[in-house]
Formats: sequence, C-alpha cells, structure tokens
Amino acid sequence: MRQSQLFMPTLREVPADADVKSHQLLLRAGFIRQNAAGIYSFLPLGKKVLHKIENIVREEMNRAGSQEMMMPALQLAELWQESGRWYSYGPELMRLKDRHERDFALGATHEEVITSIIRDEVKSYKKLPLNLYQIQTKFRDEKRPRFGLLRGREFIMKDAYSFHDKQESLDETYEAMKNAYSAIFSRCGLNFRAVLADSGAIGGKDNHEFMVLSDIGEDLIAYSNESDFAANIEMAPVLLEVKSSSESLLELEKVATEQAKTIEEVSGFLNVSSSKIIKSLLYMADGQPVLVLVRGDHEVNEIKLKNELSATDVALASVEDTKKWLNTEPGSIGPVSVSEEVKIIADQAVPYMVNAVCGANESGYHFLNVNPKRDFEYSQSADIRFVVEGDKSPDGKGTIVFAKGIEVGHVFKLGKVYSEPMKAAYLDENGKNQIMSMGCYGIGVSRTLAAVAEENNDDKGLIWPLSLTPFDVHLIAVNSKNAEQAALSDELYDLIKNDGFDCLYDDRPERAGVKFADSDLIGLPIRVMVGKRASEGIVEVKIRKSGESFEVPVSDLSSFIKQEWDKLKN
Amino acid sequence: MRQSQLFMPTLREVPADADVKSHQLLLRAGFIRQNAAGIYSFLPLGKKVLHKIENIVREEMNRAGSQEMMMPALQLAELWQESGRWYSYGPELMRLKDRHERDFALGATHEEVITSIIRDEVKSYKKLPLNLYQIQTKFRDEKRPRFGLLRGREFIMKDAYSFHDKQESLDETYEAMKNAYSAIFSRCGLNFRAVLADSGAIGGKDNHEFMVLSDIGEDLIAYSNESDFAANIEMAPVLLEVKSSSESLLELEKVATEQAKTIEEVSGFLNVSSSKIIKSLLYMADGQPVLVLVRGDHEVNEIKLKNELSATDVALASVEDTKKWLNTEPGSIGPVSVSEEVKIIADQAVPYMVNAVCGANESGYHFLNVNPKRDFEYSQSADIRFVVEGDKSPDGKGTIVFAKGIEVGHVFKLGKVYSEPMKAAYLDENGKNQIMSMGCYGIGVSRTLAAVAEENNDDKGLIWPLSLTPFDVHLIAVNSKNAEQAALSDELYDLIKNDGFDCLYDDRPERAGVKFADSDLIGLPIRVMVGKRASEGIVEVKIRKSGESFEVPVSDLSSFIKQEWDKLKN
Repeated sequence: MRQSQLFMPTLREVPADADVKSHQLLLRAGFIRQNAAGIYSFLPLGKKVLHKIENIVREEMNRAGSQEMMMPALQLAELWQESGRWYSYGPELMRLKDRHERDFALGATHEEVITSIIRDEVKSYKKLPLNLYQIQTKFRDEKRPRFGLLRGREFIMKDAYSFHDKQESLDETYEAMKNAYSAIFSRCGLNFRAVLADSGAIGGKDNHEFMVLSDIGEDLIAYSNESDFAANIEMAPVLLEVKSSSESLLELEKVATEQAKTIEEVSGFLNVSSSKIIKSLLYMADGQPVLVLVRGDHEVNEIKLKNELSATDVALASVEDTKKWLNTEPGSIGPVSVSEEVKIIADQAVPYMVNAVCGANESGYHFLNVNPKRDFEYSQSADIRFVVEGDKSPDGKGTIVFAKGIEVGHVFKLGKVYSEPMKAAYLDENGKNQIMSMGCYGIGVSRTLAAVAEENNDDKGLIWPLSLTPFDVHLIAVNSKNAEQAALSDELYDLIKNDGFDCLYDDRPERAGVKFADSDLIGLPIRVMVGKRASEGIVEVKIRKSGESFEVPVSDLSSFIKQEWDKLKN
Repeated sequence: MRQSQLFMPTLREVPADADVKSHQLLLRAGFIRQNAAGIYSFLPLGKKVLHKIENIVREEMNRAGSQEMMMPALQLAELWQESGRWYSYGPELMRLKDRHERDFALGATHEEVITSIIRDEVKSYKKLPLNLYQIQTKFRDEKRPRFGLLRGREFIMKDAYSFHDKQESLDETYEAMKNAYSAIFSRCGLNFRAVLADSGAIGGKDNHEFMVLSDIGEDLIAYSNESDFAANIEMAPVLLEVKSSSESLLELEKVATEQAKTIEEVSGFLNVSSSKIIKSLLYMADGQPVLVLVRGDHEVNEIKLKNELSATDVALASVEDTKKWLNTEPGSIGPVSVSEEVKIIADQAVPYMVNAVCGANESGYHFLNVNPKRDFEYSQSADIRFVVEGDKSPDGKGTIVFAKGIEVGHVFKLGKVYSEPMKAAYLDENGKNQIMSMGCYGIGVSRTLAAVAEENNDDKGLIWPLSLTPFDVHLIAVNSKNAEQAALSDELYDLIKNDGFDCLYDDRPERAGVKFADSDLIGLPIRVMVGKRASEGIVEVKIRKSGESFEVPVSDLSSFIKQEWDKLKN
C-alpha cells in the first residue's frame, strides 16, 4: 500500500496519559486511538495486526476441534439471574434497559448464553462432547481502566466453552485447549508460561493462566528456569529437599535474647543463620488455635495453610489470643511445652531441622538446640510455605525464579458451576438424567496485541514479529521528489509485491528524517531505502530488529529480502 | 468435518414465530438461534456463511481503496449531542450509563465516532481523501423486530465513511463504492438493483439503496426489464412519451354526470377511457391553493409535486378550502374558468391531451372536449406523477416493472451534515480553513445472509450458492453401520478433502431418511451418497439445485465433482 493513502497518524510526543511502553507506542505509531476511558479504536495498522492474531487463534482452535460460532452482546437479564451472576457481578457488568423496559446485560462473558443454547438443543450423551468458540467484543466496566489495551472496558476476546458427559472427556478437551493456547502464543512470538492458578471459590485443580512475562504484569509467578513449570506464586508447590545432617543433637538450652524479637534480630543477636531458626506463628483457624512452624528464611502461605487445615478462615492470632493460649507475647513464642489444646502444624522442612532456635514462650528468652520430636510434637507436617527464588522446581528440573506476568489466556474446568443452576441436563447411556460438565477457555485478543507490543520494542519504536507485522516490508523513497529515486521505488514496489510480500511504500513528499522516524516507530521487519545510490542501482536494506544495514544491488534485492526474511523466521 | 461432531441442531417442524422462508429455514437447518426478540446467535454453519460474506466484503472494499479499521460499540453521549442525534434518534438508539453515571450510546452507526477521529488527526488537504470501513456489530432497538436476521436489534454491518476536500473526490469515491457494492452482491449470487432513493431532509441527489428483489421486501421499487435502471417508487422519473394526435379539436360541452365523481365512475358514465380524463386535485402548498392536473390513469406523486413547487408542505385541500377557492365540492372540479388566485400545475402528459374530460366546478357536471391552452391555462407543466408498470424506462431502455426489495446496502453522499456541526475542518491549498465533505456506505452483513437464504431455497430447504456455502460437498454414508459403506465413505472423505473441497461427512448412525432430509435442509451444492452399490464401487451424486442425480464409479468421482462444481459456477 502507498503510505500517502494510508491513515496512519503518528505522533512525535509521548502522550501524557500513557504510562506503559505498549500504550505509548501503539498511540504514537498510529495503531490505536482512545475514544473514551478504556475504550479504543483500532486504526488500519492496528486492525491488520488484530486480524493476524484472530486468524492464528482461529486456525489453532479449529485444529483442536473447536467450532466457531457467534453470540450476541445483548443478553437477557433473566439468564444472568439464573446463574446468579446478575446479583454477584457488581458494577463491572454493564446493564441497560430496552425500549420495553426489559433488563439486559452487555456480555462480559458468555457462559449463560451458551449454556442456555446447549441445554435447549442437546438432550443426549450422543451429542456430547461439544466445544464452541467465538471471537467477539466484550464489555467490562473496569473501575480503573489502564495500560491502554491491557485493561480496557471494551475489548476483543476469544471465548470457548465445552460441554461433556464424562470427566475424561473434559480432561481431554482441557489438554487440547492448553496445547492450542501454547501454539497460539508461540506463533505470536510471546515469551509466556502456562501458570497453575488458584481456582478460588469454584474449586477444582485444573485452572491455568497463560502469562506473558513482563515487568508491567500485575501477577507474580514462579517458574522454572529449565522446564515449563510455572505457577501463580500462591499456588506453587515446594519440593522438599532433604539434606541429611551429621550434626549430633545438643542439649536444649534457654538463653536471654533481650529485645530481639524478629527473625532478623534473633539471627543477629545469637549469630545464627535464619535457616536455623523455627519461625513460630499462632493462627486462629475457624476459632481454634494453631501454632504454625516454618523455617526462619521461609514465609507462611496462608492459602496452603487453609487448604491443609481444611479451614474456611485462618488469621494470625491477636495479642490477647496469644496470651490466652501461650501465656506470652508474640516475638518469643515457640513449640516447646505448649498446651495440648494448641494444635501444631509444621512446614515439611521443619522436621529436618537440627539444633534449631525458637522462642521460649517467655518474653526475652529463646531456646537453643531445639530438636523436633525430641523437644516438641506436631500433629501434621506439610507444604505450607511460599516458594522462594532459588528453590528447586517442583518437577525436579531447574530452579525457581520469579517474574511478573500479563494474563493473556485462561483455561478452566468449570465443572457444574453453570450447568447445575441453569439445568443443562442430558440423558446418559442408561436413559438417566445427568448434569453436563463444562470447561471455559479465554484469550484476550486485543490484550495479546498489547502484550506483543510491550515485549517487542526499543527506544525508537515497535518491532513486530513476522507472524503479526501489519506489513512485511517497508519500502522508502528517501527523496520522492528525485525522479530517479521515485522511478526506481515504483519499480521495486511492484517487485516486492510480486514476490509475495505485503509492502508498505512510503511515497510521501516528506523529509527523509520524518520517513525514517516513522518507519522505526511502526517497526516493520525489513526496510528498503531507495536513496542517493539509486542511480548506481544500489539500495539500502535495514533489519529493524538487529539494526543491521546492507547495501544491496537492485538485481539481488529479491533474493536478499527472501534470505533475510527466512533468517528472521528462526 | 465429521457431522457427528458438528453442532448443527436441525428441526423437523417449522418454528411457530418464523413467518418468512429465510427465517424458518435458517432456524430449521441449525444456522441460527434466537436469544431474545431480534437478537440471534450464529451457530457454526451460520458463522461459516457469515465469514464468507465478510471476506467478500473485505476483498472488494480493500480493492476499492477503503481501509479497514474498528471502532467501539460504546460511544460517548457527548459526540451524539454534538451531531444532534442524541436528541433526534429516539428510542431506537440504545443508551446506558457507566459506573460513573456517564451517558453512552450503543453504536447504531458510527458517523460521530469516525468524524471525531478524523477531525483530531487530519488537518490538511494533503491527507485527504480518506475512506475507512469496519465490519462490526450494531445495535438498534427496533420497535418491531421481525423476519429473523432481516430486521434485528443487534446485527452485523459493514459501514464505511469517506472524507474529502473536493466534490469530485467525493463523486469518485461514491462511484467506486457503488461499483464495489455491485461486485459484492454479485459475488453473493443476489438478484439486486442499485435503486435511486429519496435523500429526505439531507438533500443531494446521490443516494442509492442496493435492493434484493423479493416478495417479502418492505420497499417498492421500479426498474427496467432491460437495463440496470432502478429507483424507489417515489423517486422514479417518468419519461414523457408524446403520441401526436390527429384528432381535431371539438367544441367544449358541459354535460350532466349525475352522481359520477371518481375517475372510474365518470369513465363508466361517459364511456370514455380514464386516460382521456383530466384528474384535477386541489392542494394547499404552504397555505396557497394549487390545482394539480394529471391524466385519469395516473397518480400524483406528492414528493415530486413538493420538489417542483419548492414547497415545504403540500396536502390535499379540505372541503372548505375547495369551496372557498373553486366554489364547488371535490368530485367535480376542473381547470376551466378558475380564479387567477389558484395556481395550476399540470403533469407533463396533460398538455398533450385532446378533447379531454374534466370536472366543471359545478356539482353533477363535467366538461367534454376540454383542450389545454384553448380552454385553460397552467403556470407550469412537469413530471409530477408516479411511474406505473408499462411506462417506458427513463433511460429509454425497456419497460418499467415493479418489485418489492430488501435493502442490503446503501451509499449516500452526506456532504457536511456531520462535519459542519462537529467542526471537521482542514486547511486547503491556500491555508484557508474548510469543512470536509463526507460520504457513508453501509452493507447489512447479517441481513445479506438472510437475503441469500430468502432467494435460494425450495420446499426441502436451503440451496447455497458456491461462494457462500458453509461446506462444498456433503458426503453421506447412507448406512454407517455397514462396514463396507463406512470404509468407502472414510476413504472418499479423504479424497474429497484432498481435492480441495470443504467436505461435510455425515458419519452419524442415523437412518438414511434423516440424513437425506438434513442434507436437503442445509443445502450444500453437491451431495455424494455411499449406499448399497458401495460393494460395486459405485456412489450416487446429487446436485442440490437441479435435483439431478448420477451414479458414478468411485474411480471417476474426483473428476466428476470438479466438473459439476465448474458447471455450477456458470
């Protein structure tokens, strides 16, 4: 396309209200414009990238056996009342009335609509499983829309829903969707992880978020530096590493520790490593006292603790409760000689501690040479701490590192959360009525665009991966007013197009500096500049990503571009 | 795709609330489902057809130089207040408030949004013209949604907007869009006309509706049976056909006509053809009396009359006004001896009438042998009647016939209707501030799907044109439980796919009758049935449109399908 005809309004200045790189660059390079807070238009360059993402999503979803359909944005309130979300969703769900005063929701997601369709149409196990998807505009009235396309109020999502009679069938589809998502995000050139996530109130263990590693991410994830293990920081299990100790058990000894209360203070005062200290915390779990023990260099993970205790509510005990149950103040508590009414739970690492330090349940005193089992009992030991960087990966491969992530996808086994209240039932092989199981699978399509932009840029602008670039080659007539350059550029425009590359041809009567700056900003992979050496039949080729630059005779240009394109592919 | 896995819920019964063929068949064949009044989901087959229409639209729009973009559905009320449509649009515009109580409209169309973008980004004539389009969901709260996708409340539209500095540039783009639309609807296999339409309050002559000829259409159009002339019935000009008469003028004669008042009664009473009678109607045009004359077999077109008189309001005169100005009652009025205060306007055919009949402005009497100019004067003569079937086409080619039409597209020169109030200005070559001119160009994408279904069906179901068919070939294992038939079907499924055809393979364990009925219903162009003669290597091929059926040896199947496909192309 000739750039003189393209609607691509670029900006020199960084827009004041854009605080992340992707937002700034997508605005500056003329890919998007804001129409209202959290609401954007995709200009032609942005729309082209969006199309490419959508096509990748479509290809991989179809390949995985999902069927495309399209549901409406206007959804009857009655459906949301059936699922209960009309009441629980809060102000993020946009609501309106039609001319007959009937209540509608603007689709934030489509579980209710798809479940209502399937329950009406599918009556027998013979028609299951089903996996259906759509690529569609969603509406969520975020309290604080920000980061441009990353957290908007109107955005494009691919959402898929599957329906099953058997658990194995759901498991199979879940795996197929996970694989499809990996293929999709790989093809988009993203550095992502499938992260094990908390299932929250819904329960169930199969819940993965696809996270692009990024400093501006709002979630913290723990992943292996050598395998594909990754989990939300709250969910990451800890692999127990037992180092057998040759130390002989010394005699229990009570020492005065003055004002030293925190692990750091005690460690300094007694000159012992924090890993030798038993951190003891009194919790109240559903009203009962529980003394929780972890190593001094570890932190209690309350989600794991709660799950391990099968409690609905756990919280640190108050000063009063600590006095009541341990007869001392926080800061010098420990597991030795504790009333039997106080349950003791130890992190799985604690039983392996030898000659450790702990509070003496007496203000200003600690015990030295504390040894589990000899000096105190505990009712259970389990993984109840947060992973830390440097832990061994739970799959045994590599070491845990932390990173922030942008969520671009989510796969989730819903089970019967929607099908039960909405009565999506089928007849099984024995003619018995059964409730369907469901899975749901989402991709933030417009968010993926922003995530790619966030990951692929430099000081000068965007750097598109081949799979998503709005155009393949940027041909620039350095001085369009020079007849020789213009003529050669016109000729090369046809040549490049005929070679099958989508070519943007900067034929504008602008200064070279403006053209080069715009070209860097929009970030097409390969740039061909027709300049002063046009008369000699020589052009300059520049690779956006590496910055490498080559003088290429016109006769070699065709093969040179192909060669560089293939190099960039790998 | 294997039909056992496809979500394609077919219905045997005609749904009670579906009153047109396309709506019934799209529901019955499992292409769509209703979610609320005027709100539909596209199931997988429907979505596939929708995709094909969208791709045709996209290809032709891109070819015509329009650039794809994507604007939001949520639109700030402020923009609609600037254009004035917030107040004038009425309850069809769906409105809502966000969590901060800010007013939004749900996009019914996008003139305001695109104009706000362009006025912010385009400041110079150098950046004009621009032509931008999107394929997007629109919301209009129709009072009476009906006919399924033909008149819905949420629907898919392609809308394009162009911006210009010069009238010739707008003219050029308008022509390009008209041509693109013809290409689009031709590729969709529709029998359509580009119909000259009334510009209403906006004015301007360039306004065409693309109408698919159909008995269920809500608009009446007049078109030539031999050329591409077509116009809305209100707009169609009449070509004056002068037949010189050799009759000699007879003497004016007043006759009693008793109770005969209407043209029919007078024609019967006097035994003269209605084309010999001057129909005289007294109108009040902006408060002034105007006697309007047309031939007895013609009808006054009030839009033409209004335009011809440059009046803002014309209406038939009351009995009182008739008495006041003509001193008689309606039913016997005529142009002879009328007060000079009453303006007389004659249809262009009237001056050529010879020895005509008209009312005598005296109850119960008419004149015979009335001759214009000799017996009465008129201040102007013009085309002020409706066309009738049998009129010569205004372009001189063929004869006018009437048909009903479904509007599937619309091209319109907006001029400055939006750019003026919204202040979309640019600097011209002389540095002078000017308001841009605009055009807008819409296609009902989901409506086009319904129009194609409405036009292509028979008693048994849909009949898809090649360009839009959800699958190309329907392969049916007549008895899937027969091992030989199943094995051959599997083999042919691969063969057909490898030949590049998108094949739907009915591998379901259903009765043959059910399979054939479903196949007729969804209407794929070519059907291959693997039945009893599978053992002899013979299958049956049926052409959906013609109903022709052939026994084909498996070895010839590949070339046979290609040959029939090519035949269907032409």
